[in-house]
Amino acid sequence: MVKQLEDVLGALSDPTRRAMVARLREGEATVSQLAEPLTMSMPAVLKHVRVLETAGLLRHRKEGRTRICTLEPQPLAAVEDWLAPYREFWEPRLDALVEHFEKRGR
Amino acid sequence: MVKQLEDVLGALSDPTRRAMVARLREGEATVSQLAEPLTMSMPAVLKHVRVLETAGLLRHRKEGRTRICTLEPQPLAAVEDWLAPYREFWEPRLDALVEHFEKRGR
Repeated sequence: MVKQLEDVLGALSDPTRRAMVARLREGEATVSQLAEPLTMSMPAVLKHVRVLETAGLLRHRKEGRTRICTLEPQPLAAVEDWLAPYREFWEPRLDALVEHFEKRGR
Repeated sequence: MVKQLEDVLGALSDPTRRAMVARLREGEATVSQLAEPLTMSMPAVLKHVRVLETAGLLRHRKEGRTRICTLEPQPLAAVEDWLAPYREFWEPRLDALVEHFEKRGR
C-alpha cells in the first residue's frame, strides 16, 4: 500500500499524466486518443501510459492492434484515505460552529 | 495552481516526506525532532524539509539557532479538490440507492 501510494502520487505529480487521467474519467480511450491533445512523440506518450499502468491507475486491453485504456480509480481512493486525517485543517469545524450558536442562544 | 499541484504531489510521493507531514499534523517540530525517527544524515533531512517548503506544505521560523517547522495544510486541500470529481467512482451512489428503494416501495 505504501509502495502503491508512492507510485500513485509520483504518477499524478506530472501534468501530462493528470490530463490523461482526466480524459479517462470521461470513458475509455485508445492510446491515440490519449495522445491527440498532447504535443509529444508516441514513445513519450507510451512512457506516460506505462507509468500510470505501474501505479495501478490505468489498465489496457487490446482489440487487434489498438490498445484501449481504462481508468482504475481505486488508487485515487488510497490518496483520499491518506488525506482524510488532514481534512480537519480546512473543513469548517462543525462542532465549533454548533458551540458558537449554542452560546449565542443562551 | 497547476505548478503547485505538481510540487505538492511530487513532495508527497516520498515516504520520508509523508512521515514528516504526518509528524507535523500533531503540532510544530524542530528539524531535529523531524530527523529523530529517520536514519539519515542532517543534510538529507534538510533537503526533504526544503522540498516540503517549496511545495508550500511546510514553513519554518527561527528561534535562536533552532528551526521550528509548522504544517501548511492548504496545498493538501488543493489535492483534495483535484480528487473530488473522481469520488463518484468509489463512493456509493446515493441517488442510485434512493432510486432502488423507491422502486421497491411501489
